[in-house]
Amino acid sequence: MINLHVIKIKIYYEDTDAGGVVYHANYLKYLERARTEFLNNLGINIAEYHRKGILFVVSHIDISYKRPASLGDVIDVYSEIYELRGASMTIKNTIKKSEHLLCEALVNIACVNSQLKPMRLPKELIEAIKK
Amino acid sequence: MINLHVIKIKIYYEDTDAGGVVYHANYLKYLERARTEFLNNLGINIAEYHRKGILFVVSHIDISYKRPASLGDVIDVYSEIYELRGASMTIKNTIKKSEHLLCEALVNIACVNSQLKPMRLPKELIEAIKK
Amino acid sequence: MINLHVIKIKIYYEDTDAGGVVYHANYLKYLERARTEFLNNLGINIAEYHRKGILFVVSHIDISYKRPASLGDVIDVYSEIYELRGASMTIKNTIKKSEHLLCEALVNIACVNSQLKPMRLPKELIEAIKK
Amino acid sequence: MINLHVIKIKIYYEDTDAGGVVYHANYLKYLERARTEFLNNLGINIAEYHRKGILFVVSHIDISYKRPASLGDVIDVYSEIYELRGASMTIKNTIKKSEHLLCEALVNIACVNSQLKPMRLPKELIEAIKK
Repeated sequence: MINLHVIKIKIYYEDTDAGGVVYHANYLKYLERARTEFLNNLGINIAEYHRKGILFVVSHIDISYKRPASLGDVIDVYSEIYELRGASMTIKNTIKKSEHLLCEALVNIACVNSQLKPMRLPKELIEAIKK
Repeated sequence: MINLHVIKIKIYYEDTDAGGVVYHANYLKYLERARTEFLNNLGINIAEYHRKGILFVVSHIDISYKRPASLGDVIDVYSEIYELRGASMTIKNTIKKSEHLLCEALVNIACVNSQLKPMRLPKELIEAIKK
Repeated sequence: MINLHVIKIKIYYEDTDAGGVVYHANYLKYLERARTEFLNNLGINIAEYHRKGILFVVSHIDISYKRPASLGDVIDVYSEIYELRGASMTIKNTIKKSEHLLCEALVNIACVNSQLKPMRLPKELIEAIKK
Repeated sequence: MINLHVIKIKIYYEDTDAGGVVYHANYLKYLERARTEFLNNLGINIAEYHRKGILFVVSHIDISYKRPASLGDVIDVYSEIYELRGASMTIKNTIKKSEHLLCEALVNIACVNSQLKPMRLPKELIEAIKK
């Protein structure tokens, strides 16, 4: 089974809003960065798949915001496989700042071709996950 | 009871990604624009509340992506009250392009002060919603 | 000669940063929105050209930030042709809030094909501008 | 005199647009990331200054786009001091992918207080630059 994967992200002005903290939609960008590196670690280079006409698209997100992050913070974005299906999977993410939980999310990812039609997940991905 | 509120949004290059369609995180921006105008219509000017130190923050989002929008599309973002609680509420949004459903979302909004501590929803908002 | 074209843009949380005002890079998005509507007004639908494999890409921007815009502001983004060349043009933009100047910009736009190779500007655009 | 400072940035879907390459406004975000780390390296922690009510705001940008970056690319963003004045400075940035030049920019940064009034640049910054 796959261990927890983590990346670090630093918060810049681009990430914040007039509330003084990170703008809520930007966490979805951090999940994408984390997911890209997580999948890369499993042997799936999203950019190469993109060039071959195979896309991993988000079909559903459930995200809870617990505490805010601020300018200059460095946060940890964790990824793990939550559920694996034939043509899609669910990734569980948590975002923390030191020991504090900032966000929890479940992200459904569907595999599609360049016409956005569903495809089975790449065999190499399934094998890497099941290892 | 409040009728459905709707705003129109046009898709520019800034909204899209290399998949050729709207980047998934950007729909959360459209929900914010729709929510701001919906609340404005109920007598709540978010910018004035912000200056008074009362913020409406997103605490949870559940969003399903059904179909994509593309460059030049004009989409309709609908808002309605789904649930009203003492210090928070849930807004239901749907995003459509002509008759086609693109997205469905439930967005929890909590009312907080400038230290991000929970506050009761403004009385005028509750009265406007119950009218 | 073309008269000045203007669009109105309202500022939402998505536009601002922790400095309490609009994040500087977002003005480039407003220039794109204004440019798209300005060209549309001249008979050039950017999305249709995109689908035909003809893109209008930004090759140079010179932008001065004079005063900030804040949450809830409605700003006016003006566009006019500044210079017209064979395969590119320069658009002059000014951004105002009421009578106050917020930004001034000169934006060079090059016409390219889908391999990003330079092309002559569409004849219909040149004719519309010279009218 | 200060040596050239560089950071690496990886391109994700969030960075791209329907043209298949990085959206032009996003380069300004990369310049901000590079500038933040460059100044940090000179002993100026922008987030700490922000909390003390001292902000470094962009007053002018001149940017040339030479070649595009694409999904999955890793780019290098270089920063160096171009000119130093009493209450502002100009940073020169170049963005490269391997040996290829993607962007060149001159960015004027003004030092302001929390009411956005001009202030002299921090002495420690000037000393670090002149070292």
